[in-house]
Amino acid sequence: MRLAVLSLLASTGGLVFAPAPLDSTTPRGFTTESGKVEREWEAKFVALPDAARMREAMRRLSARPHHVGSPYDKANAEWIRDQFRSYGWNAQIESFDVLFPTPKERLVELVSPTVHKASLQETALAIDPTSGQRAEQLPSYVAYSTDGDVTAPLVFVNYGVPADYEELDRHGISVKGAIVIAKYGGSWRGIKPKVAAEHGAVGCLIYSDPRDDGYAAGDVFPNGPMRPPQGVQRGSVADMPTYPGDPLTPGVGATRNAKRLTVAQAQTITKIPTLPISYADAQPLLSALRGPVVPAGWRGGLPITYRFGPGPARVHLRVKSDWSLKTLNDVIARLPGTTEADQWVIRGNHHDAWVNGAQDPISGLVAELEEARALGKLYAEGWRPKRTIIYAAWDGEEPGLLGSTEWVETHADELAQHAVAYINSDTNARGYLGVEGSHSLEKFINGVSRDVEDPETKRSAWKRNQLATIRTGTREARKDARDREDLRIDALGSGSDYSSFLDHVGVAALNIGFGGEDRGGIYHSIYDDFYWFTHFSDSSYVYGKALAQTGGTAVMRLANADLLPFAFTNLAETSNGYVQQLKALRDSLADQITERNMSIDEGVFVATSDPRDPVFAPARQQPPPPFDFAPLDKAVASLTQAADAYDKAYVSALGTSSADPSREATIRSINQRLLQAERALTSAEGLAGRPWYRHLLYAPGYYTGYGVKTMPGVREALEQHQWKDVDREIGRVAGALTREGTMVGQLAEDLSRLK
Amino acid sequence: MRLAVLSLLASTGGLVFAPAPLDSTTPRGFTTESGKVEREWEAKFVALPDAARMREAMRRLSARPHHVGSPYDKANAEWIRDQFRSYGWNAQIESFDVLFPTPKERLVELVSPTVHKASLQETALAIDPTSGQRAEQLPSYVAYSTDGDVTAPLVFVNYGVPADYEELDRHGISVKGAIVIAKYGGSWRGIKPKVAAEHGAVGCLIYSDPRDDGYAAGDVFPNGPMRPPQGVQRGSVADMPTYPGDPLTPGVGATRNAKRLTVAQAQTITKIPTLPISYADAQPLLSALRGPVVPAGWRGGLPITYRFGPGPARVHLRVKSDWSLKTLNDVIARLPGTTEADQWVIRGNHHDAWVNGAQDPISGLVAELEEARALGKLYAEGWRPKRTIIYAAWDGEEPGLLGSTEWVETHADELAQHAVAYINSDTNARGYLGVEGSHSLEKFINGVSRDVEDPETKRSAWKRNQLATIRTGTREARKDARDREDLRIDALGSGSDYSSFLDHVGVAALNIGFGGEDRGGIYHSIYDDFYWFTHFSDSSYVYGKALAQTGGTAVMRLANADLLPFAFTNLAETSNGYVQQLKALRDSLADQITERNMSIDEGVFVATSDPRDPVFAPARQQPPPPFDFAPLDKAVASLTQAADAYDKAYVSALGTSSADPSREATIRSINQRLLQAERALTSAEGLAGRPWYRHLLYAPGYYTGYGVKTMPGVREALEQHQWKDVDREIGRVAGALTREGTMVGQLAEDLSRLK
Repeated sequence: MRLAVLSLLASTGGLVFAPAPLDSTTPRGFTTESGKVEREWEAKFVALPDAARMREAMRRLSARPHHVGSPYDKANAEWIRDQFRSYGWNAQIESFDVLFPTPKERLVELVSPTVHKASLQETALAIDPTSGQRAEQLPSYVAYSTDGDVTAPLVFVNYGVPADYEELDRHGISVKGAIVIAKYGGSWRGIKPKVAAEHGAVGCLIYSDPRDDGYAAGDVFPNGPMRPPQGVQRGSVADMPTYPGDPLTPGVGATRNAKRLTVAQAQTITKIPTLPISYADAQPLLSALRGPVVPAGWRGGLPITYRFGPGPARVHLRVKSDWSLKTLNDVIARLPGTTEADQWVIRGNHHDAWVNGAQDPISGLVAELEEARALGKLYAEGWRPKRTIIYAAWDGEEPGLLGSTEWVETHADELAQHAVAYINSDTNARGYLGVEGSHSLEKFINGVSRDVEDPETKRSAWKRNQLATIRTGTREARKDARDREDLRIDALGSGSDYSSFLDHVGVAALNIGFGGEDRGGIYHSIYDDFYWFTHFSDSSYVYGKALAQTGGTAVMRLANADLLPFAFTNLAETSNGYVQQLKALRDSLADQITERNMSIDEGVFVATSDPRDPVFAPARQQPPPPFDFAPLDKAVASLTQAADAYDKAYVSALGTSSADPSREATIRSINQRLLQAERALTSAEGLAGRPWYRHLLYAPGYYTGYGVKTMPGVREALEQHQWKDVDREIGRVAGALTREGTMVGQLAEDLSRLK
Repeated sequence: MRLAVLSLLASTGGLVFAPAPLDSTTPRGFTTESGKVEREWEAKFVALPDAARMREAMRRLSARPHHVGSPYDKANAEWIRDQFRSYGWNAQIESFDVLFPTPKERLVELVSPTVHKASLQETALAIDPTSGQRAEQLPSYVAYSTDGDVTAPLVFVNYGVPADYEELDRHGISVKGAIVIAKYGGSWRGIKPKVAAEHGAVGCLIYSDPRDDGYAAGDVFPNGPMRPPQGVQRGSVADMPTYPGDPLTPGVGATRNAKRLTVAQAQTITKIPTLPISYADAQPLLSALRGPVVPAGWRGGLPITYRFGPGPARVHLRVKSDWSLKTLNDVIARLPGTTEADQWVIRGNHHDAWVNGAQDPISGLVAELEEARALGKLYAEGWRPKRTIIYAAWDGEEPGLLGSTEWVETHADELAQHAVAYINSDTNARGYLGVEGSHSLEKFINGVSRDVEDPETKRSAWKRNQLATIRTGTREARKDARDREDLRIDALGSGSDYSSFLDHVGVAALNIGFGGEDRGGIYHSIYDDFYWFTHFSDSSYVYGKALAQTGGTAVMRLANADLLPFAFTNLAETSNGYVQQLKALRDSLADQITERNMSIDEGVFVATSDPRDPVFAPARQQPPPPFDFAPLDKAVASLTQAADAYDKAYVSALGTSSADPSREATIRSINQRLLQAERALTSAEGLAGRPWYRHLLYAPGYYTGYGVKTMPGVREALEQHQWKDVDREIGRVAGALTREGTMVGQLAEDLSRLK
């Protein structure tokens, strides 16, 4: 914390302003007086979340498999709705009819040089009572794999990301007409069949290597938390970087009578049949490959020599699904606001799972329920939120963020008008508070995390995170952690229900959850259940409590702040960092390509190829021309100036109080516009080639899936060597930042006039 | 080659001199005229080495196990002597009586929680005829392990280097009273029992993990070149960084009547019993460990969860050796010099092996024999070396450089007077020419490697190395490879027979050998044999020919150069690089220690410890004070100036010829002193704590074994935090460089007066 204000100003080039007269413990957005009242209610709130209730709720919600369309999924939705009602909330179920394929036929067999049929079956364990509920379990598969029946030579492609295919090229190996086998990891799973199909593969297998989450990492279930030999990771392989949600209704809610694409028209279904398998099933296939030995970085933990292929192993893969629509059930609960009822503070966690899902998602959902119960109790004791609070329990997150996306698409206009912010959580475990989200909320969530106690160290979650960054960070990250007022939050990519709020509508969003200490290898398997969670994760639910305290405190502050707690200095500084990264990326691409072209000309690759294990030269590439980053620099400078002015006005406005009768109306007007600030960073036409994604600062990477690309238009044009698009994308992002700066500048001016 | 001279001068701060009138193809040390004659003989020479002869010699020499003291070791020595004689050389065997323990009892058994006795037996293979010669094979063991019989809990220590014990400390795990099990790799093997004993362990097992040279790296023998489950790496564990050679006769030759220490007095025998085992034998032991899961970097390729222990696995280890003296047989062959017969050019490769040793060392020895045969043939055709050429085939290299060390110690005074240089080789394989050695010979060996053809690419070995550096090097290394006149050679640590020449007597030395393409896991096992080599390595012996061409060309040039081909600019520039490294090391230690102390004070380690898997804070350390590097800077500057002057005088002296009758005498005087130049870098009192090592620029690391430490007095004082010793060691190294500079300056002056 030393030198924090100075350091922040130094890095943003901001103006020096007088020290805040606000008490340092006043939550952001409150005056000294209103902050005291807020803190009294918060103190009552944080005492309420109850570990025993979370445990019982988890036992109940994970008692049977509850994927979209299953009986227990519906039963859970109704139970959750009833819980909200019992807490004093106005709750109902909102249903959508979505395309959710479920498996009818699954076959993987090695047909030569020997014959071996994969079991495709996770083993029920006597010690783990829910693991044997086979009748209700979804068999291991990936949703939105196209149907297919192919027999082809096998090629091992490491994680199956674009760089892996460059390595294959260097060894002269093509996947054209082949079935690829990729390890889980290195990207979101849906990238693997997408990239494989782009390279001409006809089928895709994805397996969990024991090096990553099996025996290499620890004892396997049920002796330990890691993945046993038959464990399989289910999941979605829809092309979510194109659009998430129901593949048949992009951009609109999948209501009963919505206009739908045909399955054949849906862009997000894979081009090639795809199945996930266990490492027990993968080992015979990988062992049957020949060809060169793969590089050390590609090798997994099986006791075999990993080779590229192609073949001689030939594999027969068959996938066939039931492509009928299924009904999903979102639970939407409201606590009405008083004076600002049409400003919505939204909180959510999904409730559907691939199987029993005790960890994913119930560990997060039970915390959300405890928040709701506690807020209901405060409400009963007389506490009133100014703004309307909406708590959601989404269905259909697992197959593709279906429940949240369809709800957001249905209510997009209302959300654009009313939504203050969306706070998401998903799985939760022991360790560190992880936060990603909109940088306009970075300062706000830093304030919240300073007030949440870490259960293991009894220090604040903020302090523990700061010390962890000092322990593991680079020199720059350590300096930042020690000197900057706020810890940095990462930007949001995709992978949970914040996506449609942030990426499609431009609602400022945060994703929160604890983790980092518990290892596990049961993700999306039948073993993610109550037995596993209560033996190997947050078994005393103290981190469930901490999550409820974090989420609830954030919601309370957003709901009752005098002035919405956005801070634009953090956004401006972060944007500046992105611009510097993009310039460095351009320069490093220029260096790399120039160097590689020179090496090709010098004969480096020919001279260093072992004739017994030849490696070929890559193709020459065109280095990037210089780009004009000036519009971005200028836009960031103007946003920085406006943000500093806003912060100065903020301190002055909330540090004083007056009886000016116009004060309330001015603040209301400012809040109405603050609520729109994140929307200014979006573009109605969306990203190039994927118009559903409208935020110009954040998007999941087209070739990473979950992983974020910041300033994605510019960054992906650079990464994909589309040099002709770069200046245009720079202009679009600069336009958004300029709009934001103009808006914030106007807010600063209005706020500074407040008496 | 672009800008080469300019770049060299820029980096050494040298004076600009006129372009050399010497033809660029004139070998260093020759005039244009004498160089032409030299090149004509070299052209004849390089055509002579013969692949079929190398193959037959390998078959003969590796036909039976031939370790020190074995019948076939003696038979080989006699055969090699007779070969030399048949080539026209004067050859004899010089014998020494050395302590070489051979196994009498070996036992490794898991005694709890279950009982499992290790086989300690490599499997004979029907396809591989020599693998079944059990009666003559040395059983798997490590030489110079002390006798012992211990039963204790087991602890896994990764590679068993000092940093690994810091990691153990951080997990609260002590090896006091335990038997450690370490993977091969990460250091020379003898470091493992030494460091284990320093930490209180009572026994040490070393195993070959399949991730490193077993199935993870490729198919195992006999299907491929890698280590099969029962394969064991034998080796020496004597404390060679203290002194190599016979443990009973440090510093003196182990002649029959030499004064000997008792075994109990010998410093270099391990303090704890030690055995090497296979991964088949290691797996049950490692599987029986509990305790925390080890970090990802420690994990090997066995299909188990690697854990630290201690225990519950308890292991019983028994080692007992026959400690009798054995006779070793060095073969020493001479071609007499003419005008400079008392200047000796020495070349060597060992002949003893752990078992059959086709790769190690016969692949290098057969090349040396072909060199000798070819030189003998030139001699018969009228070629005469000015200087005496000595070719050695050393015995007892494997247990601890015994044959070379005892010979050098016996002849130390003569060598100090007569030795020009020593050129070593050992194993040889396909790929790149590897060169390490004295930087005064860097320019010379660059010249040789420019004239050797790489068999696979048909470009020069130099060019292939340059392109390989461009492919894999850092930005700085690439620039260096492209712009510097000479490719850099690494400094020599230990691990083969150059050590006593360079480190003890100060004879300029080079170690040469091809490699980098053939993978293998048969090192020091019964599978290193003719079958393996002819299936998986340089099976057409084209790299054997290339090695003979390299070694023989170097010897011919050293033997007939007008002026010995030392160049001190490379030495000066390299020394300057070392000084900059040492300063950077001091600064980075200061940063690291200060940062770590600050983190300890901030509570970083306490706050980031998972209570279910606790990690403890390291101890505070004292950061280094500033040191006075000025003496080193000054000494390097004066050496640089002298070296530049010498190079200028060299070009002028050899670029002209005259009939001045005093010329010959002056050159003779200069050569006499040039021959001493490397000796000026030594100190009679040796390194602190290990006086046998006298070179002040190069030594094997006390805690790395083979790995070199340059300017070892200073570097190891820094690495071991012995701050009080640093300035003193700086002074000693500066003194040596100053002596060198003075000597070179005088030589430059004398040479510049040459008419």
